[in-house]
Amino acid sequence: MSTLFPAELVTDRYELTMADAYLAEGSAEQPVAFELSVRELPADRGYLIAAGLEQALEYLTELRFDEASLRYLRESGTCTPALCARLAGMRFDADVHAVAEGAVVYAGEPLLRVEGSRLVCQIVETMLLSTLNFQTLVATKASRCVEAAAGRPVVDFGLRRAHGGQAGVLAARAAYLGGCVGTATVAAGRRWNIPTVGTIAHSYVMGHDSELAAFAAFLELHPQDATLLIDTYDTLAGAANTVEAARRSGHRPQAVRLDSGNVSDLAGQVREVLDAGGLGETTILVSGDLDEYRIEQILAGGAPVDGFGVGTQLVTGGDAPALGGVYKLVESDGRPVMKTSSHKATLPGRHQVFRDGDDDTIGLAGEALPGRPLLEPVLAGGRRLAEQEPLAALRARARAEVAALPAERRRNRSPEIHHPRLSPQLQALKESLS
Amino acid sequence: MSTLFPAELVTDRYELTMADAYLAEGSAEQPVAFELSVRELPADRGYLIAAGLEQALEYLTELRFDEASLRYLRESGTCTPALCARLAGMRFDADVHAVAEGAVVYAGEPLLRVEGSRLVCQIVETMLLSTLNFQTLVATKASRCVEAAAGRPVVDFGLRRAHGGQAGVLAARAAYLGGCVGTATVAAGRRWNIPTVGTIAHSYVMGHDSELAAFAAFLELHPQDATLLIDTYDTLAGAANTVEAARRSGHRPQAVRLDSGNVSDLAGQVREVLDAGGLGETTILVSGDLDEYRIEQILAGGAPVDGFGVGTQLVTGGDAPALGGVYKLVESDGRPVMKTSSHKATLPGRHQVFRDGDDDTIGLAGEALPGRPLLEPVLAGGRRLAEQEPLAALRARARAEVAALPAERRRNRSPEIHHPRLSPQLQALKESLS
Repeated sequence: MSTLFPAELVTDRYELTMADAYLAEGSAEQPVAFELSVRELPADRGYLIAAGLEQALEYLTELRFDEASLRYLRESGTCTPALCARLAGMRFDADVHAVAEGAVVYAGEPLLRVEGSRLVCQIVETMLLSTLNFQTLVATKASRCVEAAAGRPVVDFGLRRAHGGQAGVLAARAAYLGGCVGTATVAAGRRWNIPTVGTIAHSYVMGHDSELAAFAAFLELHPQDATLLIDTYDTLAGAANTVEAARRSGHRPQAVRLDSGNVSDLAGQVREVLDAGGLGETTILVSGDLDEYRIEQILAGGAPVDGFGVGTQLVTGGDAPALGGVYKLVESDGRPVMKTSSHKATLPGRHQVFRDGDDDTIGLAGEALPGRPLLEPVLAGGRRLAEQEPLAALRARARAEVAALPAERRRNRSPEIHHPRLSPQLQALKESLS
Repeated sequence: MSTLFPAELVTDRYELTMADAYLAEGSAEQPVAFELSVRELPADRGYLIAAGLEQALEYLTELRFDEASLRYLRESGTCTPALCARLAGMRFDADVHAVAEGAVVYAGEPLLRVEGSRLVCQIVETMLLSTLNFQTLVATKASRCVEAAAGRPVVDFGLRRAHGGQAGVLAARAAYLGGCVGTATVAAGRRWNIPTVGTIAHSYVMGHDSELAAFAAFLELHPQDATLLIDTYDTLAGAANTVEAARRSGHRPQAVRLDSGNVSDLAGQVREVLDAGGLGETTILVSGDLDEYRIEQILAGGAPVDGFGVGTQLVTGGDAPALGGVYKLVESDGRPVMKTSSHKATLPGRHQVFRDGDDDTIGLAGEALPGRPLLEPVLAGGRRLAEQEPLAALRARARAEVAALPAERRRNRSPEIHHPRLSPQLQALKESLS
């Protein structure tokens, strides 16, 4: 994959067209600042969980234009020879401030600030957006599902419906960061030590002479930790076969899984069959087209469900399949700039976010305002300033920050929308440029 | 990326758990058949454009479990040593039949059939789904946008909102296959010779002392083919600055682009300004939160728009961010099998789709029914049977097949839903197993 899609070419062509223009106009090395923020939260979102910074920093610190890429850019006429020469030795040597992964953020707040030369800062726009938009989307969705599950474990099952393999693996990371307890995706287990889970599919059951035979065979192989999928033919018959297989094998399944049908009704009936058959400790897991709204609905109806596998809706964002992150020039050659497009205006200058209790204020970077500043330096001249935090620490931050939110901001339907204040200095600067 | 996410581990853990069970039970080498199909089309979809087969075949023919991956699987307890030993030498050696990329397909029709040993056929499930689901989703969305644009060019601008870099690059391929004329994504241009486009962002305009200065500078550099983005501050003032920059520089911009505001109204006003300023041949491109519905609306209102840049909604699927493709066991050790789960039942046996005029019939693989069979052999014993078709040929197929559809099936709102018939033999087999 890496040779087919070299990261340095995973960019919009206009970044290179502009870089060429900056070189020709002599502005390529002027100092600038860009900021990445999400203009508006998707519907029913009261907060975002920042995620994806680690992959963004990997991209920035490893960015190189190799000879094959440069040849393509030259021969296809995408770039001038002058730009290719500049790119050949280029490293990302700018400064980056960022909000820590796992932190709660709101609309309009910069997740990232990039300060350096115009050419270098421009050229990384597209990949930064693609990287932060996606993981923030999924981490937020995961947090919402975990909130809905009210203490019951939520696991990521989404790889098969993710937007390709890489998206599935990155979604597994973001889902864990957002509060899931594990993933089905093996590559994510290897890369980040995320707990992986997975037992059987319908094909396993169908590959045996009967469901009972399949369950008995699997219990022999996994006497301690089998999860049996019981809806291949008829869910209640599946529950009865679970009891019978346990009786014959002498092994209790850890869990049964329901993947279809009206689980709100079925879960209670399955519970009764299991309890009557001596499997009171076997838990009930549910999967199949779940999201935060459906989980809330299932639990509100009192269904005895012990855990959830969430796939499609989690890894695609479901009702909000994209986050509208933008990367905007805020300072150009020392002067603050702003865009005034209808509904798409930006704030001028370099910013800091100050969190004071539950209230955020966006100020200018040099200001000292009450509260904790959210943006911290992470790269200086392109070099990392600190070791990467373990994923478990990012996950713990996300859970703690969401737990500390006012209830009306945490809820999954019609949450209160927090609008960060602008500091008087920023307000004045904005008005002076309007 | 490839070392971080080895393709052989981009899989659900249960594939490996089942493989382990098949080995232990002695069924790993039994012959089976799986089929991949989409159970239901998303809302308002009258057809799908099959896409992603090329990447699926790359995955299958290159599949290897390398030593580092095997070590992880062993040491993490994901697989038994016996399975690791089997995987060490494993190649994908099964037969594959598939529908050609670019073909129109309907709900319930297999896009792919895999026949071989149980272990090998099971283990590739997740990546096949992830690969075909995503590109088919995007190619279909692209086709819908192109239909809505009624002959005007549509370009993919979606990378920044795609689900990571790989998703953006694969989306560019699928979008072109579905009928887009090009993409902003440079890596897709390099990999598949897709035309790439891209001129300037708002940051270019904001980086100059004035919009007029920016436009004049860019026209000097691109006297033949400049597209000027005219909505950084005020769109009509931007149109006037376009005229003035053309007058001063003596160069006519090829196009202007509007990315915000009420483009339905603005396009006409911009057209008047350009025409009055002698720029009657400068075209008007529109971007910003577009999809097939919005394009139809803009054109229905008579706005003089000459082309569209579609991003977020195209590469994420927008109103349908996932395709519900499934990979189901249809034959096990020589006998046809089926699943009867509520709302998620499957068809037993190996199938062929016969297209007779506008009507499809799903029959059994050995049947000779009227019409053209859609599934063709593509891998035999894991080896490719034919050279890859050029992407342009796949794109031409998609456009031709969509053009030939009945109008009521092509439309983007409330299309007629075609339900393929089942052949009498298949119907009888299904009933015999119910």
